[in-house]
Amino acid sequence: MSDVLKEKYYRDAKPGERLMDFAKRMREIFGKGVVAKLCIEKLNGTEDVVVIDGVRNWEEIEEFEKVGKVIIIAVHASRSVRYSRLMNRGREDDSTSLQDLMKRDFDELQMGIGTVIALADYVITNDSSIEEFNKRAEDLINRL
Amino acid sequence: MSDVLKEKYYRDAKPGERLMDFAKRMREIFGKGVVAKLCIEKLNGTEDVVVIDGVRNWEEIEEFEKVGKVIIIAVHASRSVRYSRLMNRGREDDSTSLQDLMKRDFDELQMGIGTVIALADYVITNDSSIEEFNKRAEDLINRL
Repeated sequence: MSDVLKEKYYRDAKPGERLMDFAKRMREIFGKGVVAKLCIEKLNGTEDVVVIDGVRNWEEIEEFEKVGKVIIIAVHASRSVRYSRLMNRGREDDSTSLQDLMKRDFDELQMGIGTVIALADYVITNDSSIEEFNKRAEDLINRL
Repeated sequence: MSDVLKEKYYRDAKPGERLMDFAKRMREIFGKGVVAKLCIEKLNGTEDVVVIDGVRNWEEIEEFEKVGKVIIIAVHASRSVRYSRLMNRGREDDSTSLQDLMKRDFDELQMGIGTVIALADYVITNDSSIEEFNKRAEDLINRL
């Protein structure tokens, strides 16, 4: 999801407009499902299975449901696990204070991601190693 | 949570007022955390561990955090699993049409339960038998 959004951002953003503000403006103009629409625009309609990463609200799910059967897989880790990972990752665009991280969570929840997680078809818990997570994801994908 | 709410409902509801409307009115008067406050009122303050069932919004979590360390355990099942269970249970106050069930989900999500689920410390998946669920719950409780 963020790839198609960034692509449009680099093409169509106003001078000096930040990505977050651009995303907000796009949602106001084209509706809360706009980033899903940008993804769907990329499809050629003959794909069997498409994996989309980064859904943020239920309206996006409804867009995808218009073009195919949707299976929602939520990836869950506790706040303490996520926050300590982000603190350790230290990527430049990551927030570094606990307060920033909580604000970011509540901003995304405000957008509706909690609804998507609550109504997910499957939840994978991502609370241990990346190897264990990969294993859980592969097990689920094989089951599906 | 629903026990303390019902207790107050039987004591203080207006004649003919429905439980849902009473709950809404209480939240308007006493704030979104009111049912948590009613639970806290029941505690004598010497408990080591208290298990609360039925949190519906983040404000309730904030109330509980004022009086102790809170660990949030979300119980997740897919919509298809939950809906087929509710259809089969046939309890009198259960909705019976798929549309009613979806409306109930979105009503609760509107209240903020998605935020609580998204920010849970642990998620137990409840997608198979009650025996398997009990085992998962006991495993988690023993770990904690």
